[in-house]
Amino acid sequence: MALIDPKGLRATPYPLPFHRLIESFRSLPGIGIKTATKLAFHLLKVPEEEVERLARELGRLREELVLCPTCQNIMEQTLEETSTCALCCDLSRDGSTIMVVEDVQTLYAVERSGEFRGLYHVLMGRLSPLEGITPEALRIRELHARVETGEVHELIIATSPTTEGEATALYLSRLFKPMGLRVSRIAFGIPIGLELEYVDDITLIRSVEARRPM
Amino acid sequence: MALIDPKGLRATPYPLPFHRLIESFRSLPGIGIKTATKLAFHLLKVPEEEVERLARELGRLREELVLCPTCQNIMEQTLEETSTCALCCDLSRDGSTIMVVEDVQTLYAVERSGEFRGLYHVLMGRLSPLEGITPEALRIRELHARVETGEVHELIIATSPTTEGEATALYLSRLFKPMGLRVSRIAFGIPIGLELEYVDDITLIRSVEARRPM
Repeated sequence: MALIDPKGLRATPYPLPFHRLIESFRSLPGIGIKTATKLAFHLLKVPEEEVERLARELGRLREELVLCPTCQNIMEQTLEETSTCALCCDLSRDGSTIMVVEDVQTLYAVERSGEFRGLYHVLMGRLSPLEGITPEALRIRELHARVETGEVHELIIATSPTTEGEATALYLSRLFKPMGLRVSRIAFGIPIGLELEYVDDITLIRSVEARRPM
Repeated sequence: MALIDPKGLRATPYPLPFHRLIESFRSLPGIGIKTATKLAFHLLKVPEEEVERLARELGRLREELVLCPTCQNIMEQTLEETSTCALCCDLSRDGSTIMVVEDVQTLYAVERSGEFRGLYHVLMGRLSPLEGITPEALRIRELHARVETGEVHELIIATSPTTEGEATALYLSRLFKPMGLRVSRIAFGIPIGLELEYVDDITLIRSVEARRPM
């Protein structure tokens, strides 16, 4: 077919700039070739300003967002170098309790629930010796510095219930318990509202092991 | 909650540049708030070059793509002003038959099937008096100029089987039949491979009306 590149390099018959955009969309999570193509065609049809705005927002994303120097949450770049994120700045929150999470998504998931009133600490990952993620690669030093101020009384470890998440929880517990604070782990068990027959075996076993007196 | 803008303008608790990007993703077809958020977080984690590449490709999309002056297909911007798209340039194709399509997507859908060996003409829309889309708003003048060369013997009208698509087909047929060429419409009926019981009523009625002797 005439539209295929003579070098056979291209999988789609579209002009190169269009093809490249489709391929970039495809590299995003959850976007296959059909959605990628649909998005690219959509951007051909919308007013040019809309495409330019998206391009600009993407281009500036990394420069406009910085990490909160205290908790490593994402925050908007400001002129004052010492400012912290909106959560750390909020004096109505309980600074004696820090919830330790793996990533910013988890922070916002907990925040969305609206119940937790303490502060957060984002590790930016979880321990994984196989992938070369050692304690030094995580933001544990920063957490240590916060604990050392003496203002923190409890750490709630909210890493995932995966092998790496559990290893990270164990590591943090061993590191911080000797410093005299309470270290707790969020509870794992049957999700609320789920019929027991649909719960997977491991969750069921864990929920029985973790049973509590009534 | 502290993260909500005091003016109540923001629906997500994220920093403004992040929020804006999520909103832009949401404005794309088939992308809801969950996917938009997932995409934005993904772009926070990937190497910065990847985000910059996507931004660059989006920014350049409209300047690098032009319309083929003959058939209105999209093509890469070239230095020669008179060049046409890869399809129009392809001398192995049959220039006496032109398939008229509403948009570039349809062109590539037909091209993907690999059977049609004529040329195309992209109308860039379909007649819709309610939306103010008159014949002048479509690329009908350009089609007229192609027909006037005398090289075209058949127009295959491949607009959609919608009210607007049918009206467009009828308009084109009345315009071009008096010029002495054959004007045909693609066939509508039962899709191949579909069980008859699942076919919608209108398709079923149309397929009986359009029955052919065996």
